[in-house]
Amino acid sequence: MDYKGRQKRLREVLSKHHLDVLLITHGPNVRYLCGFTGSAGVLVLSESRTVFFTDGRYTAQARSEVEGAKLMVGRKAPLVLASEWLKANLRKLAGSGKCRLGIEAEHITVAARSRLAESLPSRFLLREAPALVEQARMIKQPEELQLIQEAGLLGASLFDSALKAIRPGVKEAEVAAEMEYAARKAGAENMAFETIIASGERSALPHGRASSAAIPAQGFVVCDFGVILTGYCSDMTRTVHVGHVRPAARVLYEAVREAQQAALHAIRPGVSAGEIDHWARKALQKKGFGRFFTHSTGHGVGLEVHEAPRIGAGQKEVLQPGMVITIEPGAYIPGQFGVRIEDMAVVTDTGCEILTPTTKELIAI
Amino acid sequence: MDYKGRQKRLREVLSKHHLDVLLITHGPNVRYLCGFTGSAGVLVLSESRTVFFTDGRYTAQARSEVEGAKLMVGRKAPLVLASEWLKANLRKLAGSGKCRLGIEAEHITVAARSRLAESLPSRFLLREAPALVEQARMIKQPEELQLIQEAGLLGASLFDSALKAIRPGVKEAEVAAEMEYAARKAGAENMAFETIIASGERSALPHGRASSAAIPAQGFVVCDFGVILTGYCSDMTRTVHVGHVRPAARVLYEAVREAQQAALHAIRPGVSAGEIDHWARKALQKKGFGRFFTHSTGHGVGLEVHEAPRIGAGQKEVLQPGMVITIEPGAYIPGQFGVRIEDMAVVTDTGCEILTPTTKELIAI
Repeated sequence: MDYKGRQKRLREVLSKHHLDVLLITHGPNVRYLCGFTGSAGVLVLSESRTVFFTDGRYTAQARSEVEGAKLMVGRKAPLVLASEWLKANLRKLAGSGKCRLGIEAEHITVAARSRLAESLPSRFLLREAPALVEQARMIKQPEELQLIQEAGLLGASLFDSALKAIRPGVKEAEVAAEMEYAARKAGAENMAFETIIASGERSALPHGRASSAAIPAQGFVVCDFGVILTGYCSDMTRTVHVGHVRPAARVLYEAVREAQQAALHAIRPGVSAGEIDHWARKALQKKGFGRFFTHSTGHGVGLEVHEAPRIGAGQKEVLQPGMVITIEPGAYIPGQFGVRIEDMAVVTDTGCEILTPTTKELIAI
Repeated sequence: MDYKGRQKRLREVLSKHHLDVLLITHGPNVRYLCGFTGSAGVLVLSESRTVFFTDGRYTAQARSEVEGAKLMVGRKAPLVLASEWLKANLRKLAGSGKCRLGIEAEHITVAARSRLAESLPSRFLLREAPALVEQARMIKQPEELQLIQEAGLLGASLFDSALKAIRPGVKEAEVAAEMEYAARKAGAENMAFETIIASGERSALPHGRASSAAIPAQGFVVCDFGVILTGYCSDMTRTVHVGHVRPAARVLYEAVREAQQAALHAIRPGVSAGEIDHWARKALQKKGFGRFFTHSTGHGVGLEVHEAPRIGAGQKEVLQPGMVITIEPGAYIPGQFGVRIEDMAVVTDTGCEILTPTTKELIAI
């Protein structure tokens, strides 16, 4: 991975944001910048230096993974090590002046910030930095796209396991078990999030994690699932039907499918995230299901299953080639049933390419 | 679950901590206080009221799960809904005076705090509240202990799957796959953390998550795994050996086993967490492995796999009946091999009871 290039580009914008040093504490951001995959690591990046801090549990792992950063391992928590290093290197970082230290405000806790502020001399000025690493992470580099594509294909292959497992009377959790087993066997490091298998009335719960409920003889089964492969996430949803498909159910399914298609069709560079959301929402409104679409249309995917950009109403972020986003409209009739259809797509120069290529025809089991 | 009792006890200590209102944003704390298991919920607790906020995705789920709190569902983020409610109810909360609003400093991000502060009138005084809910969560109630015991037994049963799967040439991830499949089949909602299967040289990585590496013909395999069952986590580690056990490996294994036994033996009410750590550390030091024990001895377990108290050097927290902790000393010889043995135990009136009852004899496969 292009760790040094990523660090270099970040370094170049520090002064533009009035920062001398950036303190990176969010795990996926640390990984993005230096390759460390453990859970306790902090990166300090200044115009001339990159230093990585971890504790003794991760000595060997950090040595084998971290690139482009000086390695500092200590017995204290990484953030404490980083603050001690900052204190000791204040002169090198800021001469005899103030040192403007950017923190990741969306990730660092209030308590961690307080401890940091107390431990540093007053010549350090703590600043809430904009989400610079997240901004960079939005546009995937070719080698990332390759990995995301592989994760998407592995993820999509799990739908076969779901189709084999879904039968009336089978527990939702058993369907998840089969999918997760297949994922692991195929090399996934983990699932990207708790597998959602929501059947019957539970299909009306947008976040109906696989439960011990048995799949009923008749109704929808929403399957929302994703894997982590080589660090990158996949995310997709298919909704299938068990037993006889009543006309009202088919109407809802086709409305969601059309909404999803409308949003996918609108994807191209230069279009805002809010516009994409609008197309999905408008399609469902036209069919009278607007008020049953109770969440955003999608989100970015990469090292995290939810990352920038958010594809929601009014979002101004403009799509660019290399962004990877989900399109996942849904409609949920409380106490009755729900449908969601989700693909992961990469924005190309002219439109998008779907990374989760699996049929969206209504499958009746 | 005793949600109302938990809220009542928390309410009673608010004024002692100079707070009029507590804003609970940390998921496991929200769940502990009102039963909500979703990912987006905020609880506001004052001396006379408890109000729960969530967004439209969770309407049905909140209705069926939340107890002892007024339910507020809106189209905005729960924290925004909560701040709007606080603003509208300022008079009821604080009359014409200031309203001291406690935030969970160890969990809320700097950015969320800033947005909250900006949205509230200046009569609200934001205060970093102590970890009141975490303190309460340390002592498990009987119905929680029942669930933790069940989680512990289910977790322990996965060791059989590991033993069946571990063979030279099998990938670490395949062993994890078999264990996770068995967990799901037995009703686990999820694994409590990424399963660690670290074989051969990788056994010297304290956090060697199951990788695509094949288990070698000879060496240790560290298996650290846990499940979530009905919301409660299990956590345990066993280290087995593949092929001929060299004397040095056996010596290390027995040293770790003795250290673990020494720490377990020391558990009783009134002893500090630091003392427990001391006993494990001292045992390893006596055998010359002190410097290879690079982490703490253990941690609390409950709704989170890592929660209070921390069982580490110098920790002053005093053990009390009903606490559930892990005891997991390890020793890791870089580039060679490592061993960790971990049990989960509940502190009783006279000592402790192990919740992960599986043999700790060295098993050679």
